[in-house]
Amino acid sequence: MAQRIVVIGGGGGGLGAAGGAKAVDPGASVTVFTEFEDVAYSPCGIPFVHGKEIPSFEALFLADKQAYVDAGIDIHYNTTVSSIDVNARTVEVVGKGTVPYDSLVIATGFSYADPGVPGADLDGLYYVKNIRSAMEWDKRLDSVKKAVVLEAGPLGIEMATALAHRGIETHIVDPNPWVLGELCDPDIAELVQESWTEMGVQMHWNTKLNAFLGDDAGSVRGVDTSAGVIDCDLVVVATHKEPNSALAVAAGIKTGSTGGLIVDSSMHTSAPGVWACGDVCELPHQLGGLPLQGLTGSHAYAQGKVAGANAAGGSREYQPVYVPWGMVAGKWMIGGVALGETAATALGMPYVVGAADGISRARYYPGVKKVRVKLLAEPGSLRLIGAQMAGGEGIKERADFLGVAVKKGLTLRDLATMENVYSPPIGALNEPIAVAAQNALAALAKGK
Amino acid sequence: MAQRIVVIGGGGGGLGAAGGAKAVDPGASVTVFTEFEDVAYSPCGIPFVHGKEIPSFEALFLADKQAYVDAGIDIHYNTTVSSIDVNARTVEVVGKGTVPYDSLVIATGFSYADPGVPGADLDGLYYVKNIRSAMEWDKRLDSVKKAVVLEAGPLGIEMATALAHRGIETHIVDPNPWVLGELCDPDIAELVQESWTEMGVQMHWNTKLNAFLGDDAGSVRGVDTSAGVIDCDLVVVATHKEPNSALAVAAGIKTGSTGGLIVDSSMHTSAPGVWACGDVCELPHQLGGLPLQGLTGSHAYAQGKVAGANAAGGSREYQPVYVPWGMVAGKWMIGGVALGETAATALGMPYVVGAADGISRARYYPGVKKVRVKLLAEPGSLRLIGAQMAGGEGIKERADFLGVAVKKGLTLRDLATMENVYSPPIGALNEPIAVAAQNALAALAKGK
Repeated sequence: MAQRIVVIGGGGGGLGAAGGAKAVDPGASVTVFTEFEDVAYSPCGIPFVHGKEIPSFEALFLADKQAYVDAGIDIHYNTTVSSIDVNARTVEVVGKGTVPYDSLVIATGFSYADPGVPGADLDGLYYVKNIRSAMEWDKRLDSVKKAVVLEAGPLGIEMATALAHRGIETHIVDPNPWVLGELCDPDIAELVQESWTEMGVQMHWNTKLNAFLGDDAGSVRGVDTSAGVIDCDLVVVATHKEPNSALAVAAGIKTGSTGGLIVDSSMHTSAPGVWACGDVCELPHQLGGLPLQGLTGSHAYAQGKVAGANAAGGSREYQPVYVPWGMVAGKWMIGGVALGETAATALGMPYVVGAADGISRARYYPGVKKVRVKLLAEPGSLRLIGAQMAGGEGIKERADFLGVAVKKGLTLRDLATMENVYSPPIGALNEPIAVAAQNALAALAKGK
Repeated sequence: MAQRIVVIGGGGGGLGAAGGAKAVDPGASVTVFTEFEDVAYSPCGIPFVHGKEIPSFEALFLADKQAYVDAGIDIHYNTTVSSIDVNARTVEVVGKGTVPYDSLVIATGFSYADPGVPGADLDGLYYVKNIRSAMEWDKRLDSVKKAVVLEAGPLGIEMATALAHRGIETHIVDPNPWVLGELCDPDIAELVQESWTEMGVQMHWNTKLNAFLGDDAGSVRGVDTSAGVIDCDLVVVATHKEPNSALAVAAGIKTGSTGGLIVDSSMHTSAPGVWACGDVCELPHQLGGLPLQGLTGSHAYAQGKVAGANAAGGSREYQPVYVPWGMVAGKWMIGGVALGETAATALGMPYVVGAADGISRARYYPGVKKVRVKLLAEPGSLRLIGAQMAGGEGIKERADFLGVAVKKGLTLRDLATMENVYSPPIGALNEPIAVAAQNALAALAKGK
């Protein structure tokens, strides 16, 4: 009899798992339950449709439903799993009853943290997630004059940039002292915030939300904050991503300090025959020991492939994560990997640092952009422990590179002596990564 | 008494050496002799001014002459060194007599290989090199209708692209079967050549030059080739770069198989107290043992800094070279590092290979471009030995990364499991480098 693999969740993690399972065992019965009416679209693209950089939501769909049928993956849409019995190896599916499994993959994703203030039931609070609701909200945005974006994390950054680009008066309210406050350093945040000012975005840092304020009709009309009242027609609630772990917790599966499901390197949970992937689980971070939860769609998909392959009898490992990150913020790209100065300081990790303001092409070539690079290394060994960057080109590619550099234990000396392509339209004489490393070494030499 | 450091040559290597020497010993007397009337401009930018991508030649100048005076570097323009006496430690300078040195740096650069056919004395043969002559040739280009570019090496590629961009009917004549025939593989060349066809460039591969053809006034009117006569008003002679080593050879300094001066890792030549850098010298190549000569301005400058620092009493090493390369070719960027399939095959080196056609941003994000990546690795160990790429974005940054990957001995497994930034405007879900490595591993697994 074909082995029965059940996947809960139809996002990047769940579909990665379904595909991973089929790749290992094409004869397996693979069933996916999702609460939504679609799978296989790119939620990461939603802010850019709102910002009118992308012309339509239709572009975000990756594959049609028939493609999954053809691949032998049985997807049940608009379907809720209400409980898991890890001993009986069954799930309860609303309207369908008890469904047995041999292996289960939990990919239930995240929800935005509850702001925990009055007024959360008002109309006009937008939690960006589902593409069908994004289509409805997009129509509403045509009549919005003033918007508040609550918290400047990755989604908040993209939404604030998008709303400003669309011509809406946009306010950011965030309890941190600068953009992406837990991840990003102030010298990187500075460029983003300057460009937001140019775009007319009003920033309210170190500011706590007290309440959402509504009118008699029950629509949001403003927010009350520690810095006063800000009027608005819409609030984008872009708070921290919290794992949707309730279903797994009720089944007795163990969670870690972030609330995410604990998994081993095979993405297996504490329950026999149960794997997990994506935003519902937490992963050990290789630097500083901090567990990580709420990474990107790319991580969810890669984890899903590993979880699904192993659920089908494979033996794959998910590699430790150093999390190269990057995004467009205001008029810049920002990015990095592992620890910045803010995070290293918070963790009490000592570091040496080198930075450089370089350029992306020959200084005389049209389209040349600034590239700011900062590198952090362990004192003594000079092994790279992190990087932060802001610039106009090539930030994603450099972040990917530096992610591998951290993982493989490369040092500032390795980076200081790296060769680089010099060609006026695509690369400057000096690579900013190399110059940042050289600057760090020069500062250390002077200090001796 | 201050030590006397003499530098012959005012290009990237020579000025790198002058600066490197002053950095180690600010009190040293540093003298530079150059045959040209300028230093410190970017010759690499010349094709792009001809192509009208860059508005003027003035943009290419990096520093004014006063900046060198202020830095304590004594530059003699329009000045020829006619001989070196390595025993007496002197150079003969035309019009100035005998000049003594304690340390000498030879940075005499390259000349284009003589095509060795009749008609080389005709007017209308353009050897791209000096900025003053480029300014004169640029005026002539306004009246050129048809041009031939002789050989599709790096400069020939840039010049053919530039002339086509300027609206001149452009022909490429090259003895190789495809563009950049010794370095580049046909699957990469293919994209470039397709785009040249779109731009109206006519390519004549496997074609040997027999003669330059002129009119009675002594101006070039065509080229005679193994594929017939091609009419033209101008020929860009972009043949192989040969080391300008005659001065050093006459002084008894040793050369290698390429004709370049042999240097050790400190950039020291066979003569006591004499260093060399840039296109005049040859370097060991770390893969395949092939010596390399005629690299880029970026290499020349980095070598110059090492040579100059050591000439002033320092002890720096120039790192082995893996030569990440990249350029704009037609409508694409191409690039790579170390060995491609063509070079590995020519050297008799076994390899395994994996390739992927990926994209540079989310597939629905405006401006998304193709990124083709091919990786070569040593069988068994799967250590990376080279890469070739073509694409529309991020080729230089990926080539830099893969250069470090080759140097540090990273394997296809390391690249297959690399993390990558996914953010719709700047990076796709799957990094093409990782997919190419995964494809290589999958093919190997099937073969077993």
